[in-house]
Amino acid sequence: MPSQSVPVPPVASAPLVPAISLRSDLTTQRSTRRVQLTPKYGSRACAVDVRYLWCGAPDAPTVIVQGGISASRDVLALDGEAAPGWWQTLVGAGQAIDLDRYRVLAIDWLTPADLSEGDAAVVSSEDQADALAALVDALGIGRVHAFVGYSYGAMAALAFAARHPYALDRLVLLAGAHRAHPLATAQRAVQRSIVRLGQDCGQPEQALALARQLAMTTYRGSDEFARRFTAAPEFRDGRFHFPVEDYLEQAGRRFVERFDVERFLALSESIDLHDITPEQVPTPATLIGFPSDRLVPLADLCELQRRLLGPATLEVVESPYGHDAALKESDRLAPLLREALM
Amino acid sequence: MPSQSVPVPPVASAPLVPAISLRSDLTTQRSTRRVQLTPKYGSRACAVDVRYLWCGAPDAPTVIVQGGISASRDVLALDGEAAPGWWQTLVGAGQAIDLDRYRVLAIDWLTPADLSEGDAAVVSSEDQADALAALVDALGIGRVHAFVGYSYGAMAALAFAARHPYALDRLVLLAGAHRAHPLATAQRAVQRSIVRLGQDCGQPEQALALARQLAMTTYRGSDEFARRFTAAPEFRDGRFHFPVEDYLEQAGRRFVERFDVERFLALSESIDLHDITPEQVPTPATLIGFPSDRLVPLADLCELQRRLLGPATLEVVESPYGHDAALKESDRLAPLLREALM
Repeated sequence: MPSQSVPVPPVASAPLVPAISLRSDLTTQRSTRRVQLTPKYGSRACAVDVRYLWCGAPDAPTVIVQGGISASRDVLALDGEAAPGWWQTLVGAGQAIDLDRYRVLAIDWLTPADLSEGDAAVVSSEDQADALAALVDALGIGRVHAFVGYSYGAMAALAFAARHPYALDRLVLLAGAHRAHPLATAQRAVQRSIVRLGQDCGQPEQALALARQLAMTTYRGSDEFARRFTAAPEFRDGRFHFPVEDYLEQAGRRFVERFDVERFLALSESIDLHDITPEQVPTPATLIGFPSDRLVPLADLCELQRRLLGPATLEVVESPYGHDAALKESDRLAPLLREALM
Repeated sequence: MPSQSVPVPPVASAPLVPAISLRSDLTTQRSTRRVQLTPKYGSRACAVDVRYLWCGAPDAPTVIVQGGISASRDVLALDGEAAPGWWQTLVGAGQAIDLDRYRVLAIDWLTPADLSEGDAAVVSSEDQADALAALVDALGIGRVHAFVGYSYGAMAALAFAARHPYALDRLVLLAGAHRAHPLATAQRAVQRSIVRLGQDCGQPEQALALARQLAMTTYRGSDEFARRFTAAPEFRDGRFHFPVEDYLEQAGRRFVERFDVERFLALSESIDLHDITPEQVPTPATLIGFPSDRLVPLADLCELQRRLLGPATLEVVESPYGHDAALKESDRLAPLLREALM
């Protein structure tokens, strides 16, 4: 659940990465495919429309790339799109996840609304994995070269490897583990309670913005907050406003513009329900963790590494950016990703 | 702002410390005294009723003891009180803060309502310090042997030492520093926004409970959450409930029984407005910090130690209990407190 860049951000906040001009010999599908799956919390199979992006060198091996719950299939921007993709700095022709060598496949996360043909009111990381596996099948991809997952994406990647091991050659997991940490669950449970309070009293959007504010306090490292927000509070509109508060309020407002309450509740809960047995995952894995990540403590990645059935390496990247390091430390992550995909 | 024990908790949750039977030769005042002070955020002096407890050996030196914003003057229980005081394990006859050797003085924190004779809508840690200094004067105490402060109490202690250095011999500061950490301010700002949202939509108590839930996620160490809340979620009342969520919800409900919205808003803001220049504090100080405290990072106590004008030692106590360690690690704190008071 990272604080990803907004799909259509104001100009001032857009990262300084231009949308790449996709070469004409790269294949691109940005489409929807109907697949069948049986939701974990449902009792029967249902048809689901999966919105996906599949893009890269023709006939190249496919790499699945999935981010946090607020990420979309738009890992990178396509020609003519104003906004950069959420991992624009690492995915592209000539970049760490190189579209000259791979085809990248990504989906929009499913929500319970997508499962409406069935009877499941809850979506699981296993459902996301099954949807991806069915899509891989429907697109005739065969084996997937790698599943690169960040945050909730790492959870879905583990679920994919546990349930469809013969469809996948390797795992690359950034800041995500076999289960949510109970402290992180506590923080998300409060976020969901805020939103439900807002729904009860007719202020769902204001509550969603507040829940996002709380989420923002969990993404960055403690030292980064200390460095950025040293100024004195300002008295205005009848109360003191602290610099960090202005930052949070802006982030909350922007989130509401691009996310809705039900989607937030469902995907937030899905993170906390995630529970995979690492001993059932045979796929070779590269784990990447950040010591300043308070949402996914490094200790959880150490435990995951120890328990995975397949061989696993753990790369530790020092960064002030906490859980957001996967979005901020592109230069440090690029060589690790290149090596993990080899 | 610690998760202190409730004044009138259910039997099952009461700490296993009986209310001490105060010896008849200990003096005890549990009373109110009117003093004058000029609030930091006001323009004129006002009279304030300060509710205090002053208790211990007759003619013994006085030690001020103040806790977090949810603590009261009832540091220890007096004869006939059903509930233990908030620091019952460390304050009493024969205990670390020994009532056979000292008289303990504590006040109920002031709120803006207490300053209503003036024009201040905000209460500062300096106001709390000035109220204590005026009370010390009114009671004829002369010099205070030590000010032992935990959390917000440590903030008020620093303000006292900065403003009334000749009234105080030593400082003992647990999990509190010269300013709030910006990440902690972010977390408290969200708590206050939750409460204001609740006020706006007529559900202030539910919102206060939620704010308390969020606060609870900041008090204990991450590992302690991981150890305690390993059970699977339960599906009931139409949604999944996580074990940590049940814990938070109970804590929220109990807080609402003993705290009110306006008091919470004012004291929470007072923490974030706290800003003392350590270079102006000449009083010898013992600082006690906990590496697992995410609310008051040890780094802030290191900075405070480095910057204090007077001599300062820093004691580091490893504990899984984070910011709550001052309430949970009595056996480890007792010798440190005894030594600091010598």
